[in-house]
Amino acid sequence: MPGTHPLRRLALRRSLQAAELDALLVTDLLNVRYLTGFTGSNAALLVAADGDGESVFCTDGRYDTQSRQQVPDLRRVIDRRCDLALAAAAAEAGYARLGFESHRVTVDGHTALAGTAPKVELVRAPGMVEALRMVKDDTEVEALRMACAAADRALADLIAHGGLRQGRTEREVARELEERMLDHGASGPSFDSIVAAGANSAVPHHRPTDAVLRRGDFVKLDFGALVDGYHSDMTRTVVLGEPADWQREVYQLVATAQATGRAALRPGAGVREVDAAAREVIDKAGHGEEFVHGLGHGVGLEIHEAPTLSKLGDGKLAAGMAVTVEPGVYLPGRGGVRIEDTLVVRDDKPELLTLTTKELVVV
Amino acid sequence: MPGTHPLRRLALRRSLQAAELDALLVTDLLNVRYLTGFTGSNAALLVAADGDGESVFCTDGRYDTQSRQQVPDLRRVIDRRCDLALAAAAAEAGYARLGFESHRVTVDGHTALAGTAPKVELVRAPGMVEALRMVKDDTEVEALRMACAAADRALADLIAHGGLRQGRTEREVARELEERMLDHGASGPSFDSIVAAGANSAVPHHRPTDAVLRRGDFVKLDFGALVDGYHSDMTRTVVLGEPADWQREVYQLVATAQATGRAALRPGAGVREVDAAAREVIDKAGHGEEFVHGLGHGVGLEIHEAPTLSKLGDGKLAAGMAVTVEPGVYLPGRGGVRIEDTLVVRDDKPELLTLTTKELVVV
Repeated sequence: MPGTHPLRRLALRRSLQAAELDALLVTDLLNVRYLTGFTGSNAALLVAADGDGESVFCTDGRYDTQSRQQVPDLRRVIDRRCDLALAAAAAEAGYARLGFESHRVTVDGHTALAGTAPKVELVRAPGMVEALRMVKDDTEVEALRMACAAADRALADLIAHGGLRQGRTEREVARELEERMLDHGASGPSFDSIVAAGANSAVPHHRPTDAVLRRGDFVKLDFGALVDGYHSDMTRTVVLGEPADWQREVYQLVATAQATGRAALRPGAGVREVDAAAREVIDKAGHGEEFVHGLGHGVGLEIHEAPTLSKLGDGKLAAGMAVTVEPGVYLPGRGGVRIEDTLVVRDDKPELLTLTTKELVVV
Repeated sequence: MPGTHPLRRLALRRSLQAAELDALLVTDLLNVRYLTGFTGSNAALLVAADGDGESVFCTDGRYDTQSRQQVPDLRRVIDRRCDLALAAAAAEAGYARLGFESHRVTVDGHTALAGTAPKVELVRAPGMVEALRMVKDDTEVEALRMACAAADRALADLIAHGGLRQGRTEREVARELEERMLDHGASGPSFDSIVAAGANSAVPHHRPTDAVLRRGDFVKLDFGALVDGYHSDMTRTVVLGEPADWQREVYQLVATAQATGRAALRPGAGVREVDAAAREVIDKAGHGEEFVHGLGHGVGLEIHEAPTLSKLGDGKLAAGMAVTVEPGVYLPGRGGVRIEDTLVVRDDKPELLTLTTKELVVV
């Protein structure tokens, strides 16, 4: 039985055949990683519609040994300009129609490709690998599960060891959270952590400052861990000390909207419908203007990838897609709440990967 | 007197006038940051040849408040697709020739621009801002100085506190080094730190593993700090315990080559000459085949930027350029040495920003 990467290349070959392409020149490094397992910083891949026997992997001399180990099953070329080396290989193979990643290849890069392979028709083929990447296979879900677990454990440790006490700065909390994710197996944070206290919690993408945590504050923590190249994404909002009535109300509203959004995740659901289901809850409570972003996004080798769950999104969910659900209500000058999980769409009900409680935590 | 960013835009306008462009559409986010100070994750800038009065900055709604503070001196547009919004602004202004960053704009992005502004001639203008960025102004050198100081201090602390002791893993050392850089004001490491012990030190871009530091090992540490968006870059190689004769010899050779390379840094020197000066030292000692990379690279808002000091580099140095000088000799299976500084080219002699000793440190 073929391994993970050959199976992914097989799926891509079916797309190539449907698009009547002889091959695809994959230059996006994450797409190369997805299709081969190669983790270096310079590579490209020529995937032939005919089969792996005709496909060619390229990297430069720094990665000769590494690529021999990680990509043992494909013909390898060593070159600094992999895009051009593989365009030349495509010309040599006599391909008539070569797809290229027109959403990634630059205008100057395209000119260089055309100069290298003047007899090959370069066909725009944007997003072919990304379309496959939307649906995660078991290996990917396992990496996401580990990344989500590292984040869950880091937050649990942070709270258990008094990391969210009054007088600490947002920056100190962010740093401790990130260090604790490393303790739990993360290779790093999956993005710059957001720690936002008090009025700062009303800023959706606040960056941690030297602002101090005070009694009565909302503290919003939006963070994630990176494991095997896969990103987790989670937001929790806690209160320091006894919550005020308005805090309980806003929290309950966002929690209800978030549960509604999660419940709407099923194969075949339109991404706009899912966004609308959660948004309606907040709209009806009169806070629609204060939910200023989309409901969620796909997550995997990138922290933000397809699909987009928003008013502007497009398409339907399918089983195996990994997405976030993260409504928020932000009251300028007072504070805001966002609650976010990472989940996998399943035939019955979505699989929750971020397991930290969504009850209002009072620290 | 105009501030830093208006002065940079003024310099760019001179380039635009020389290229007979009415304006440049700047979509590279680091170039936008360089020209405006804006640090958000979505923005573009239309720099008019005529002056700042005609220039337009764009970002999306998430950054409304932030951009008001960071970019108070330019007309602002709020839009999610800044490239298209500014192409429309260029069309509205009646520009005939609009430069675009053809080394960054994708093939699909270019099509969208042309569709938005069909009457404007889109002119390839690759690297115009990067050419200015090569020569650092005082604000930039100060940021680099702080970044280099954070790295120097982190290494000093690491050694002083016994961080390089036998039995620790490469991964543990890398993590401690990165945490100590944060203690000294870094917002993060400027790239994934390299810690390579024993035979691993012979791999130029080794990633830290669970390999353990042992007596007699070379330990190569290549790391840097990020301060205000500017990257420092430094490599030191130490020995655990008393060095063997071959280790002293290789170390001395690389140190001599590195000093020779530094001495060759002067305004007007060709980048290939500088590379050749250091390389000759290693060649003459019979180790030319084991110096498998270029001598150095520019450093600033990116960890690797122009100019490139190598056999394949192009152009001459100028006062104010910030570069690394980092020769290495790698003996497969035994160990390797690299010594790297970050420096600024000056009229008299280069200014050294990484101040840690280059004597062979025996831990």
